[in-house]
Amino acid sequence: MRVTTIHAPGDIRLEDRPVPQITAPTDAVIKIKAGCICGSDLWPYRGENPITPGDTIGHEMVGVVEEVGAEVGSFKPGDFVIVPFCTCDNTCPHCDNGAHSACVNGGFTTGGQGEYGLVTQAEGSMVKTDGMPDDDLIASLLTLSDVFPTGWHCAVSAGVKKGDTVVVVGDGAVGLCGVLAAAQMGAEKVIAMSRHESRQKVATAFGATHIVAERGVEGGKRIKEITGGVGADAVLECVGTDDAMQLAFAAARPGAMVGFVGVPHGVELPIRKMFSKNVGLAGGVAPVRRYLPELLDLVTSGTVNPGLVFDSVLPLSEVAEGYKAMDERRSIKVLLQP
Amino acid sequence: MRVTTIHAPGDIRLEDRPVPQITAPTDAVIKIKAGCICGSDLWPYRGENPITPGDTIGHEMVGVVEEVGAEVGSFKPGDFVIVPFCTCDNTCPHCDNGAHSACVNGGFTTGGQGEYGLVTQAEGSMVKTDGMPDDDLIASLLTLSDVFPTGWHCAVSAGVKKGDTVVVVGDGAVGLCGVLAAAQMGAEKVIAMSRHESRQKVATAFGATHIVAERGVEGGKRIKEITGGVGADAVLECVGTDDAMQLAFAAARPGAMVGFVGVPHGVELPIRKMFSKNVGLAGGVAPVRRYLPELLDLVTSGTVNPGLVFDSVLPLSEVAEGYKAMDERRSIKVLLQP
Repeated sequence: MRVTTIHAPGDIRLEDRPVPQITAPTDAVIKIKAGCICGSDLWPYRGENPITPGDTIGHEMVGVVEEVGAEVGSFKPGDFVIVPFCTCDNTCPHCDNGAHSACVNGGFTTGGQGEYGLVTQAEGSMVKTDGMPDDDLIASLLTLSDVFPTGWHCAVSAGVKKGDTVVVVGDGAVGLCGVLAAAQMGAEKVIAMSRHESRQKVATAFGATHIVAERGVEGGKRIKEITGGVGADAVLECVGTDDAMQLAFAAARPGAMVGFVGVPHGVELPIRKMFSKNVGLAGGVAPVRRYLPELLDLVTSGTVNPGLVFDSVLPLSEVAEGYKAMDERRSIKVLLQP
Repeated sequence: MRVTTIHAPGDIRLEDRPVPQITAPTDAVIKIKAGCICGSDLWPYRGENPITPGDTIGHEMVGVVEEVGAEVGSFKPGDFVIVPFCTCDNTCPHCDNGAHSACVNGGFTTGGQGEYGLVTQAEGSMVKTDGMPDDDLIASLLTLSDVFPTGWHCAVSAGVKKGDTVVVVGDGAVGLCGVLAAAQMGAEKVIAMSRHESRQKVATAFGATHIVAERGVEGGKRIKEITGGVGADAVLECVGTDDAMQLAFAAARPGAMVGFVGVPHGVELPIRKMFSKNVGLAGGVAPVRRYLPELLDLVTSGTVNPGLVFDSVLPLSEVAEGYKAMDERRSIKVLLQP
């Protein structure tokens, strides 16, 4: 089968590899219907994370169950499933407590930009749809693998509640899903920080009430204006850089929480400001499985359409072009069809 | 009148100064019944914070109203009042939101280790008792000025709830009050990190179910044992040093919150661990006024006795000896009688 691999910064290849096989009774093999490229795939692509040459890449996928191990009782060949980027048994003390991404038997999905994928801890990790979904739902279902629950987790971590004023830093797919989550949770004002017109449009479609194109000190000033000098009740930091984090803390009102879901790179937390302003920080790797039943309902009922984050659909054979497009910010997020 | 001043590290003096006068309509002057020395007074005493020679020191006091400004309508001479270490108007947007320590008209109380104190924003800051309290209540009422609401804020920030397992790092007066707060909030296990027998006794009286004398890696191991390898649901960091903060994060289970109320000194937050474990951080300068009505009820009803943190009572004339005793950890907290 064909699967995407990375050999060096900027060196993305589609290679022939054996179809994955079940090796543990908790495994499942999935025929991938759609995969995609994640903002976090750009860290190794840009040489900012270490690379083992020849490793497969890609951790988001939806597809049809091909085969299951002996301990996978809730799924059978032919089921359409969503595969979370982080796997879990859904029974350990951390899963029981809603921290599925810290599951004692958990791991990370890989090989999602290919034709077949192996899912470990399939029973605890996957969820299935009622029957085979329409093609026009595939993009939104694929966001359930990572970006929608990750944006949702950011809003949960920031404590977003009805009537709040929420600032979202980052207009990538996760940030846009953070806008969607905040709006769904009843935020009254959702301020999206974005200076790209195409992303501003998605943010508005997702429920943003204000768009702020300025960054840094100027961005902070605009937020102060919009919030009558008070600051935001909750802030979603969806990038992972130090600039984004500092802006997030500048935007927060005293007593607020900053949620964060971007893998931190070079971030230095402003602990004295956090202390004097009573602004907290929470978040991390999203416990996808925890949110899936609720978010799957939102998608299948047509309440939300997070699939709008995919502004580009490419055949798997053009995966390298997909990485280029995202790296150059020509595309928000690329959906890959095997 | 006599009031305590600091001139250099270790140089505490009792000096004659004029009795404070009302200069703003929001001021009140208090005849101090009891003041005390705070753990945070030890930072300048030890030369770890800058000092302006001759400045008064001390920010906790209870006493009797001597005089009020024209805009102070809820208090009159003769009322017994608790004065929070941070003042507030109790009407600004931050106060309305429970972030009283960020009040737009707020400030910090000073001159609390003396005979008379000036309270700014007296109307919004102070609370009074029903009539003159018995002498044996004074110590507990004095903790309402700072350490009890600060420990309480730490538990609130850490999200302590009924049935939780809570770890408290720090066995100073604030940490002990954190133990008391966690127990009052219904925590099932309260693990106090303490290796001083006198402090262990107070922790136990306040509701600690476990005492861990080990620190650092060994302390973390003991917590893992007690929590069946899972970690704590909530952690209270009541010191402010890097060692204490690292231990707090080591003790927390995935998805937990660390509350922090010790002024951070040299703390480097473990952001990658926070991200991978989904352990958040919240807290800061305690919004004392927010908690005062509830905590005053707990004290006057005899439900709690936070005054146990005072293991030493000295006349104001021996204030310098009080600092020495606290600096050398011979005393948990010193109450000063003018």
